[in-house]
Amino acid sequence: MNVLLTGFEPFDRETVNPSWEAVRALDGWRQGAVVVHARRIPCVFGAALRALDTAIDELQPQLVLAVGQAGGRSEFTPERVAINVDDGRIGDNAGHQPIDQPVVAGAPAAYFSTLPIKAMVRDLRAAGIPAAVSNSAGTFVCNHLFFGLMHRAATRPVPGMRAGFIHVPYLPEQVARLPGQPSMALATMVAALRVAIATSLAVGEDIRETGGQLH
Amino acid sequence: MNVLLTGFEPFDRETVNPSWEAVRALDGWRQGAVVVHARRIPCVFGAALRALDTAIDELQPQLVLAVGQAGGRSEFTPERVAINVDDGRIGDNAGHQPIDQPVVAGAPAAYFSTLPIKAMVRDLRAAGIPAAVSNSAGTFVCNHLFFGLMHRAATRPVPGMRAGFIHVPYLPEQVARLPGQPSMALATMVAALRVAIATSLAVGEDIRETGGQLH
Amino acid sequence: MNVLLTGFEPFDRETVNPSWEAVRALDGWRQGAVVVHARRIPCVFGAALRALDTAIDELQPQLVLAVGQAGGRSEFTPERVAINVDDGRIGDNAGHQPIDQPVVAGAPAAYFSTLPIKAMVRDLRAAGIPAAVSNSAGTFVCNHLFFGLMHRAATRPVPGMRAGFIHVPYLPEQVARLPGQPSMALATMVAALRVAIATSLAVGEDIRETGGQLH
Amino acid sequence: MNVLLTGFEPFDRETVNPSWEAVRALDGWRQGAVVVHARRIPCVFGAALRALDTAIDELQPQLVLAVGQAGGRSEFTPERVAINVDDGRIGDNAGHQPIDQPVVAGAPAAYFSTLPIKAMVRDLRAAGIPAAVSNSAGTFVCNHLFFGLMHRAATRPVPGMRAGFIHVPYLPEQVARLPGQPSMALATMVAALRVAIATSLAVGEDIRETGGQLH
Repeated sequence: MNVLLTGFEPFDRETVNPSWEAVRALDGWRQGAVVVHARRIPCVFGAALRALDTAIDELQPQLVLAVGQAGGRSEFTPERVAINVDDGRIGDNAGHQPIDQPVVAGAPAAYFSTLPIKAMVRDLRAAGIPAAVSNSAGTFVCNHLFFGLMHRAATRPVPGMRAGFIHVPYLPEQVARLPGQPSMALATMVAALRVAIATSLAVGEDIRETGGQLH
Repeated sequence: MNVLLTGFEPFDRETVNPSWEAVRALDGWRQGAVVVHARRIPCVFGAALRALDTAIDELQPQLVLAVGQAGGRSEFTPERVAINVDDGRIGDNAGHQPIDQPVVAGAPAAYFSTLPIKAMVRDLRAAGIPAAVSNSAGTFVCNHLFFGLMHRAATRPVPGMRAGFIHVPYLPEQVARLPGQPSMALATMVAALRVAIATSLAVGEDIRETGGQLH
Repeated sequence: MNVLLTGFEPFDRETVNPSWEAVRALDGWRQGAVVVHARRIPCVFGAALRALDTAIDELQPQLVLAVGQAGGRSEFTPERVAINVDDGRIGDNAGHQPIDQPVVAGAPAAYFSTLPIKAMVRDLRAAGIPAAVSNSAGTFVCNHLFFGLMHRAATRPVPGMRAGFIHVPYLPEQVARLPGQPSMALATMVAALRVAIATSLAVGEDIRETGGQLH
Repeated sequence: MNVLLTGFEPFDRETVNPSWEAVRALDGWRQGAVVVHARRIPCVFGAALRALDTAIDELQPQLVLAVGQAGGRSEFTPERVAINVDDGRIGDNAGHQPIDQPVVAGAPAAYFSTLPIKAMVRDLRAAGIPAAVSNSAGTFVCNHLFFGLMHRAATRPVPGMRAGFIHVPYLPEQVARLPGQPSMALATMVAALRVAIATSLAVGEDIRETGGQLH
């Protein structure tokens, strides 16, 4: 059974992207019948979705965890919802900066993750890893990929596939050049991904435990 | 022409809610053919939507600005999107704490504001008022009311009505008891609401100006 | 009896400095025998101290409240301690950027405010104004002025004079151009200064109420 | 040549203190003529200084790095200055909560670290470790220990001894129970301490590089 992890190439003047560093560390990891495959996604509107589609077609995964960098966050944050809007505060790696465009014209306004995000956060914290549910994946290429992933799952499904998106903090080495920001060690991110995979494979219906925000 | 402003009653151990204090200051305000009506909404899942429905039925407003408190924010923040989930981190004022329930079963995953939120932020900043687009209204009664408002507008429309939600910071007097939090003076909030109303009535299609977030 | 309030000219690409806007609003204010005088101080190492000295010589004040802008803070913050170091993260308005120089060579490492800062914070909060004791005035021209003020008071005293420094947040109009920062309305700052003056004149020995920080 | 590292016992309802976990990992570490000794300090006003004194008497160290937990910070932060005040926001581990008491009656208002804190931050960042100079060690037992250490060094010196204080963030496992806070992995802290020791032993006069704060 295949598990697909995706990470992004660096963007916004960075030379490293923690999402790719973390998922590549698990490429080829096997546990029982499960094989993990890592794919690197361009930080480009449109091209990101085509790369994702190709990987899903090839691997027919039962689980897809798309991962992205959320500079400024301090925790490993499974996302709850993808929204149908591209609104770039900066340009992507091809120089495009769409503003208030739908990710997919005519598609629903939003999709919810089909991962057990509450159970994930519970298991991550039990393992000593800082984690929280996030209620916004932003409006840049991360949300774009997340929305495209869920739209693909809804419209051209791989039978039995669950999918979602996780944001990770900066790596310490990035923060050494961006003083004042929180970070997370690569080893912690990799351990967190292992927990996220295990929980996603083990938990059917998500637990009822608050991960809400007042606003 | 009627404009409906709603604010909430206090919650979470507060004795005042800045959203109600701000909108009540404009109750009865007339400018040309426009008359502003303020209504106080209970901070209770379900009951909030019934109170809103009653006010819309009565007033048949052309514009609805629902306003709520976002403790911890420092700016006047028009919300972009309401999501179809109730997930209370605390109980509401009737002691209910739904977790991962839809606001409206069978309704879409999300609705976008029909207010010109980008033009609003532009005009607010030009007026010297701290403002920003927000991409998450949370999962508590504020998002609940916002979602219910947009669902009502989509399914039982008042012809020509535009609607959306705005979060406001704490008042200074609240922060005097909650050290370390940002706040906004009531006079600034009221001035901001005046700008928000004027922009909503004047701007047809929203401007294309980024209000996006990387994550 | 004279009270001297000082505020700074704008710096760091700003066109306004909230400290000067707040203190100038009270220039000439009289209450009983008390007359308030506001003076504008250049944001320049050295020149700031000369301007302060001139004002003290002229007015022989019983109370000096030096005020400065602390962009990023959300509260009105009386400072506890001035340290004997100039360490500019940016240049001052004359382009000087001293690094790890003493404010006054041979002077003590630090001076404590002689204002009743705990009583001030108590009275400000009772008046509904966000306030907190701060344990660091930084290492730029604000701390420089604060240290020079306390050194003057210690070495060439005006009999009976109490003195200290207060940092104030950005004004809302500044934050309209610096999204994401907290701010405080000018009217709130002016009300806060009135409380700070009244408490400083009324309270002899400061109250024992924690204003400490764990770190 | 002996190097003394001190860390604190847990406080404020924690079951672990990152400062002790980090320094104990280096206890007994030898590099050339240098031997590192770690000592655990009680989080108690007064008793902390007695334990420190005993360790200095015994080891006659050439370098003392006292380390403490700064929950909420995201970086490894060498402190610039210790101030002569105890002001507990909470009680210490013996239940004492001094307010506005001097650490040492009659001692100076402050002492500066004699560590090369700017060079340390430069070397830490070059090693990919988040670090920054801090201008306030607070007013709790950390500042108390730092002040007592520098007062001891000034009044009963060990010939050639340099000394100072460093604050470290929460560990990830602590943040798993305190959502929303930044953290740093233990391995990163230990690597940071190695850099801090090496820089302290190698750099005579500190470099001139800004580590200042505007406020």
